Amino acid sequence: MSEPRRRPGGRSAQVRAAVLEAGLAELASAGYHNLSLEGVARRAGVNKTTLYRRWGTREALLLDAIRARATARVPIPDTGDLREDLLALVRAAIANLTTAEVQAMVRASIALSPHDDTLAAAGRAFWAERLAVDAEVVHRAVARGEIAPVDAEQVIEAVLGPPYFHLLVTGRPVADDFLVGTVDLVVSGLRR
Amino acid sequence: MSEPRRRPGGRSAQVRAAVLEAGLAELASAGYHNLSLEGVARRAGVNKTTLYRRWGTREALLLDAIRARATARVPIPDTGDLREDLLALVRAAIANLTTAEVQAMVRASIALSPHDDTLAAAGRAFWAERLAVDAEVVHRAVARGEIAPVDAEQVIEAVLGPPYFHLLVTGRPVADDFLVGTVDLVVSGLRR
Repeated sequence: MSEPRRRPGGRSAQVRAAVLEAGLAELASAGYHNLSLEGVARRAGVNKTTLYRRWGTREALLLDAIRARATARVPIPDTGDLREDLLALVRAAIANLTTAEVQAMVRASIALSPHDDTLAAAGRAFWAERLAVDAEVVHRAVARGEIAPVDAEQVIEAVLGPPYFHLLVTGRPVADDFLVGTVDLVVSGLRR
Repeated sequence: MSEPRRRPGGRSAQVRAAVLEAGLAELASAGYHNLSLEGVARRAGVNKTTLYRRWGTREALLLDAIRARATARVPIPDTGDLREDLLALVRAAIANLTTAEVQAMVRASIALSPHDDTLAAAGRAFWAERLAVDAEVVHRAVARGEIAPVDAEQVIEAVLGPPYFHLLVTGRPVADDFLVGTVDLVVSGLRR
């Protein structure tokens, strides 16, 4: 007998999605220091024991939430062209970063990670996974002979790093021109 | 009659340097929320009215402190070669960023800027000045015909952005290989 497939839109998946969205919303409105699984449960209209059983800590819940958000909003493009793929990826990543919820999460994580090992570990886990996924567009460009073999994750950081720096460190909004200029510079280097 | 020149190593410059170092040290140990001009005055062994008269706010003092630190520790290289200049610049910038004082300042500023207009304005002012100064190495490469005309500040952000992202966002230490790889990718793109 085969296992029944869990439907993606089933009750359990719906509750999970509602909780994860509530986690990001609660973080953005209450701040990390005031974030609790109780608060998230209240916002999602779910019993708090469900959250404790499933996630255990607020850091585990936030890691799942930011991962689900990135998976939904930053799909991995496959246009057959490295420049187009990187541009689509970085545009989606920066659109996601500039939502109130993700920006609150990233800014809090940067400030608090040095003082909170659990949060720091969640952040490292997220980025280890996410850079490996993003790197797929570079591996495909190498496989089809568009560019020579290269450190694929370093290429992803070369296109994501400047707009993150621009927004979070220099404090300026990221215009589309900036993303195009960043990607063009990196792709020129790779196609040399 | 000519104005007497203020000696760089004179009493006034010494007090100023001591206060600015005390400001960064106090930020790193007390945290931004607990930072006050009184605390900085106490740490520097200076009367607090001197600080109020000269800087007025903690944000003005921190802006001056971070500017003095960057000027002292991140000199603008001029080796006659763009790759060498960018590498020296980014190595010095990341060495400065990874000191406890500067890292505390940058992490606090990223977290608090959305909620603190004075701090946000100080951060933007610092980076507007600093990117213009850093861009000098790119302007010189264009002037000597090493590369075609280019948006010089975008080049600086293309080499500073990835290591900032690596350290602050992905949460990993920045190895020298990473800096070399980043600079090589950008310089390859410019020399195409």
